[in-house]
Amino acid sequence: MSQRIAVIAGDGIGNEVMPEGVRALDAAAKRFNLDLDFHTFDFGSCDYYLEHGQMLPDDWFEQLKDFDALFYGAVGWPATVPDHISLWGSLLQFRRQFDQYINLRPCKLMPGIKSPLAGRAPGDIDFYVVRENTEGEYSSVGGKMFEGTEREVVMQETVMTRTGVDRVLKYAFDLAQTRPRKKLTSATKSNGISITMPYWDERVAKMAKSYPEIAVDKFHIDILTANFVLHPDWFDVVVGSNLFGDILSDLGPACTGTIGIAPSANINPEGNFPSLFEPVHGSAPDIAGKGIANPIGQIWSGAMMLEHLGYKAAGDAMVTAIEEVLSAGDSQALTPDVGGQGTTESLGKAIAERI
Amino acid sequence: MSQRIAVIAGDGIGNEVMPEGVRALDAAAKRFNLDLDFHTFDFGSCDYYLEHGQMLPDDWFEQLKDFDALFYGAVGWPATVPDHISLWGSLLQFRRQFDQYINLRPCKLMPGIKSPLAGRAPGDIDFYVVRENTEGEYSSVGGKMFEGTEREVVMQETVMTRTGVDRVLKYAFDLAQTRPRKKLTSATKSNGISITMPYWDERVAKMAKSYPEIAVDKFHIDILTANFVLHPDWFDVVVGSNLFGDILSDLGPACTGTIGIAPSANINPEGNFPSLFEPVHGSAPDIAGKGIANPIGQIWSGAMMLEHLGYKAAGDAMVTAIEEVLSAGDSQALTPDVGGQGTTESLGKAIAERI
Ligand SMILES: CC(C)[C@H](C(=O)O)[C@@H](O)C(=O)O
Ligand SMILES: CC(C)[C@H](C(=O)O)[C@@H](O)C(=O)O
Repeated sequence: MSQRIAVIAGDGIGNEVMPEGVRALDAAAKRFNLDLDFHTFDFGSCDYYLEHGQMLPDDWFEQLKDFDALFYGAVGWPATVPDHISLWGSLLQFRRQFDQYINLRPCKLMPGIKSPLAGRAPGDIDFYVVRENTEGEYSSVGGKMFEGTEREVVMQETVMTRTGVDRVLKYAFDLAQTRPRKKLTSATKSNGISITMPYWDERVAKMAKSYPEIAVDKFHIDILTANFVLHPDWFDVVVGSNLFGDILSDLGPACTGTIGIAPSANINPEGNFPSLFEPVHGSAPDIAGKGIANPIGQIWSGAMMLEHLGYKAAGDAMVTAIEEVLSAGDSQALTPDVGGQGTTESLGKAIAERI
Repeated sequence: MSQRIAVIAGDGIGNEVMPEGVRALDAAAKRFNLDLDFHTFDFGSCDYYLEHGQMLPDDWFEQLKDFDALFYGAVGWPATVPDHISLWGSLLQFRRQFDQYINLRPCKLMPGIKSPLAGRAPGDIDFYVVRENTEGEYSSVGGKMFEGTEREVVMQETVMTRTGVDRVLKYAFDLAQTRPRKKLTSATKSNGISITMPYWDERVAKMAKSYPEIAVDKFHIDILTANFVLHPDWFDVVVGSNLFGDILSDLGPACTGTIGIAPSANINPEGNFPSLFEPVHGSAPDIAGKGIANPIGQIWSGAMMLEHLGYKAAGDAMVTAIEEVLSAGDSQALTPDVGGQGTTESLGKAIAERI
């Protein structure tokens, strides 16, 4: 069965790592006999915005909605387009309109990658952050009053719905269920944020009753970030609101030294709209155009995409190839960020060959 | 001139570390010839709540408002009183009613303290987190609708005022001005939280114009937490909203390994109401009653209090005494958390003697 995949490279190094992502997927398709059908789009980038005055064409929803998955590079180019315009005009539209209410990011200490944490080795850290991806603190409700005066006041409403909270919790509990440790940690701040966060806690407690095998704990977000650094081995599946999940899913990969290579999935679990797969890193204006961006985040995101499409063996093979290339440590292949003298292409090719 | 200090031990280990805080302050008073006049209060604790049905007496404001400073232990005992009741009923009242709009926390790698970060030594990490302490995400505006049904929705408004934002920024810029590196980092999330956070950025940019000598940068909170782990040496003064400051001021001390001993100050810079000084750690139900809690956070908070009251030399002497005792590494004196076999009292006495 053919899988139709929309490819959107976006901005900056998105354009450099995307070809390697596609190369690796092609290699996996060959080996596992999959039929991946790629279609490339130029919208969802700041260049497109500068030409058209908007990040996406009016009919983007129609154009994309029947794809099996979206494969995204990176978006944002603050030198020409402010981030809140480029991001709200593209990525955040996809997440919302395609109801990709799960943002999933693995935090895994990989071989050959130096963790900034003292005394941690591969195997020590291996957890998932599950982030609510459509509501919460990322809200379009609010405004400004007494503008331009001393009394100026700005408000923005955090909005949590029972539907929105319960479905992300269910996904996280189900994920914990599939893991050997069967542990779930909830990120909260009910001691300070006194309305929405106690509600979040309430729903976690309620959901926990349906999953008696899962060991559940919770931490306030302040001490939770501290514990990511102090006790990363405590965690298995960590679930958080849109903002808390956002923070934890950058901090987690930072603790494993993989922020430049970590993948992420924006998932619509019901499958009524396509899910979106993208590296955690951004467009990286500082190294864009040099050909040295690490393509692993893009490739690893491709692996998550294959797993999501039902090809778990193919996805696993891609992750294994990444691990093997990192372990091998061939400095001609590896990019500078992981200690080599290679290029985006040399590393991409090395991984594709392993696959 | 006599300084009247209200002492509130609060809950759990608050009761154990407070006597050592007072002991150290007494020692400093003796050496520097200060007149510190301590008054002890039993409210602001969960025991008080269980007896009176409220955390504070009706006239707490009258009782406390003319003190020169408040010296607080720790509050919270979730086994009997939910955190959002105990905290909102005490600490958060003080911060708001006494308009302690600055929360200040040093993040400093101390001698003899093991950092969880690889390859960092004392001197490498030394910055302040300045947190807005009265508004923002900690808001009392919001509510719940369609309660108990599938349509249930919960809302909480983040509120930022120009007054509130500008005054914390001014404090942070002024603080950066006094530091050799003269660097200020702003915590934002204007790429996702599209109303309040762009406003925060706007005010930072505006304020920066009045401080041309200060090097200003900003990071989104997600990558900022990552950079605390990856590049803690980048930071000098970091300023954030109530929630972002809360997170960063736990994560910062975690990165320096000092979360159990870090101090904090809740400051009313105008001095029309007393400021409050408290350790970062909480009431620690797990070790309460054992006499092994580390009193350094309380003592170091006392040092910040003396500095705030105008006795900088005395405050510095207290911090130096802490550093010397940690460097000396006498395991009979040190508490178990820092590798010793001593008690709260033995460590408190060792520091008081050095002072
Ligand atoms: C206890 C809690 C309400 C408080 C806060 O979030 O402000 C604490 O974490 C702190 O930082 O002092
Ligand atoms: C770019 C930004 C809006 C986005 C977010 O905060 O969701 C990013 O940080 C992410 O995590 O994908």
